Amino acid sequence: MLHITEEDVLKHYSMKQCMKDVEKAFSLSKTTRVDIPFRTILHHNGEGAHTLYMPSYIEDIQYASIKISSLFPSNKEIPMIQSLIVLTETISGKHVATLSASALTMLRTGAISGIGTKYLSRKNSEVLSVIGCGAQSFGQVQAIMEVRDITKIILYNRTTDKAELLSAKIFELYSSWAGEVIIMEDANEAVKAADIVVSCTSADTPVFSGKCIKKGTHINAIGSCAPNKHEYDVHVLNRASKVVVDTFEGAKNEAGGLLIPHNNNEWSLNKIYGELSDVILEQEEVRNSADDITLLDSVGVGFLDTICAASIYTKIKEIYK
Amino acid sequence: MLHITEEDVLKHYSMKQCMKDVEKAFSLSKTTRVDIPFRTILHHNGEGAHTLYMPSYIEDIQYASIKISSLFPSNKEIPMIQSLIVLTETISGKHVATLSASALTMLRTGAISGIGTKYLSRKNSEVLSVIGCGAQSFGQVQAIMEVRDITKIILYNRTTDKAELLSAKIFELYSSWAGEVIIMEDANEAVKAADIVVSCTSADTPVFSGKCIKKGTHINAIGSCAPNKHEYDVHVLNRASKVVVDTFEGAKNEAGGLLIPHNNNEWSLNKIYGELSDVILEQEEVRNSADDITLLDSVGVGFLDTICAASIYTKIKEIYK
Repeated sequence: MLHITEEDVLKHYSMKQCMKDVEKAFSLSKTTRVDIPFRTILHHNGEGAHTLYMPSYIEDIQYASIKISSLFPSNKEIPMIQSLIVLTETISGKHVATLSASALTMLRTGAISGIGTKYLSRKNSEVLSVIGCGAQSFGQVQAIMEVRDITKIILYNRTTDKAELLSAKIFELYSSWAGEVIIMEDANEAVKAADIVVSCTSADTPVFSGKCIKKGTHINAIGSCAPNKHEYDVHVLNRASKVVVDTFEGAKNEAGGLLIPHNNNEWSLNKIYGELSDVILEQEEVRNSADDITLLDSVGVGFLDTICAASIYTKIKEIYK
Repeated sequence: MLHITEEDVLKHYSMKQCMKDVEKAFSLSKTTRVDIPFRTILHHNGEGAHTLYMPSYIEDIQYASIKISSLFPSNKEIPMIQSLIVLTETISGKHVATLSASALTMLRTGAISGIGTKYLSRKNSEVLSVIGCGAQSFGQVQAIMEVRDITKIILYNRTTDKAELLSAKIFELYSSWAGEVIIMEDANEAVKAADIVVSCTSADTPVFSGKCIKKGTHINAIGSCAPNKHEYDVHVLNRASKVVVDTFEGAKNEAGGLLIPHNNNEWSLNKIYGELSDVILEQEEVRNSADDITLLDSVGVGFLDTICAASIYTKIKEIYK
C-alpha cells in the first residue's frame, strides 16, 4: 500500500489534470453508476469536534474511496480540517493507497469552480474577485486562471494578512504573469469590479450583496457546506438568470445560500437551472447574453475525491515503480 | 502516520493483551460513551463483491477508527476478506495509523470467545472441539488456551486439509504443550467429546446438533454474521441454561443461529440472558451448576477494532520511536 503525501499531490497532480478528472466524474455521474452513501458523523467530546466518514464509488473507473476528516471548528490550536483518503481498487478489493487530502481537496474544490467558470462565464472575462482568502482560495484562483485570461485579481478578506499571503502565492506560481493583484477592504467594492467572483468564506451572514454585481458577472460560491451558512444575499439569486448547483442532493441538504432564502419564501429551489453535470453535457451554451448573471453554488461532492485519488495514485504508482 | 503491517501485529500484539483490551472495551461499553454507527455498504459490480465501512469510537480512550473491508464471497481468485483500519486520535484529530487488519480481526474475534469461556465455562474444562478450521479458528484456540488448561483439541472441518493445517499451527505455537490434537470427520462426534466447543463455520444449515452436547459444555458460536447463517440447531438453544450475546443490537440484526429459530417460533430472543458486558460486570458466577450448558453467540462488534488498533499503535509507536 502506497502512502501519498501532500508534497506528492502538489508535485505530481496539476490543476489541468484535476479539472479533466472532475469534469469526467461529473459526466459519469449522469451516465453510469456513481454511489455517494450518506456520510457518517462521530461527534467527539467537547468543542463541537467531530470526524466525518465519506465513502464514494465510481463503477466506471473501478475505484471506491473514503475521505476521513477530523473537524475542530473552535479549537484554534488544532488545524480546522485534517483529512485522509483511503483508496480501494474494487476489481481486486485491494486497499491500494492512503492520501493526505488537504491539497487534493483544495485542487478538486477549485476544479469545480473552474469548470463552472468555463461553461458559465463570459469568454472575455478578465477581472476575478476572490471573497475570502482562506485554505480553499488558492485552488480557486488556479482553476479560473486555467480557463480565462485573467488580467486583474481583486482579493478581499476580513483580515488583510490572509489576502497578502494569497497575493504572494499567486505571484510565486505565476511568476511570468503580467496581471495585477489588488487587495480591497470592502467586499461589495470588490465584487462591483468583477467579471468573475469566487466566494469562499465560512460566513453565516452575507458578506456581499447582489445589488453590487455588475451585469454579465459569473459567481462561484463554494463556502457554504451547511444549511446555516450564508455568503451572499438574496439579490444575487433574484438577479441571476441561471443558478447551477453541483448536485441537487447536496444543494437541498447543505447549500445555506439557497436554503435560507428558500425557507424565507424570498426565492425558490425550483428556480435552480440544473446540476453542473447537466451544464457539462448540454450541447448549447447556457449563457444567453453577455448581460446574464450566472451563479454556481457548490457544496462539494464525494465522488470527486474518488476520481482524483485514483488519478493521483495511477500517476504516482508509475513514478515510484 | 504509521503503517502497521500484519507482521507487526503478530509480532507485537499478544492474545493476552488483546483479551485485556477486549474485556476493557466491553466494560467501557456499559459505563461510558461508545459509538458504533451503522456500517456503510458499497456494492461493486458483479459477483456479490462489496466494501464495508465500519467506524466506531470509544470516548474513554480518545480514539476512533474505521475498518474498511473488501468482501469477495464468490471469486476464488481473490482473498475473501481484505481489511484495513484507519485510527484517528480524537483529542488532536490526527489520523495516526493505518493497520492491516486480518491478524487483528482474528485475535480480537478469538478474544471474544476467550472471555466468554473465562466467565461461562467450567474451570475444569479440558477438551476443546473446534468446528470449522478456517481463518478465525487459530485465534479461537489461542484465546481458549489462555483461560483453560486444555489437554485435548478435537478439530473438525468439511475438508480435512484445513484441520491438518490448524493442527500444525497449534503444535508450532505450543511446542512445549503436552496435549494432543485429534482430527474427526463427524462434527457431532467432535462436540460429543467436548467441554468447550468453538463453532466458526460459514454454514447456513446446522453443522451439529444440540442433542450431541454433553452436560456442562460451554459453546462459543462465532461463525454467524448474517441472518441467514445457521451453525447449530435449535436443540443447543433449548438445552442451554444461559444464552449470552456480544451485543443485543448485533444479535437482533445478524445472529442467524438465534434469529432463524426465533422467526420459526421454536425459540425466543427474549430468552437471551444478557450481553457479554453484563457477564463481565456481574459480581456472581453466571453458571449455576457443573451441568449447565452455556452458549455465547457472537457476531462481532466494531468498537473492539478501535481498542485493539489503539493498543497496537501505542505499543508500536514506542518501539519505533
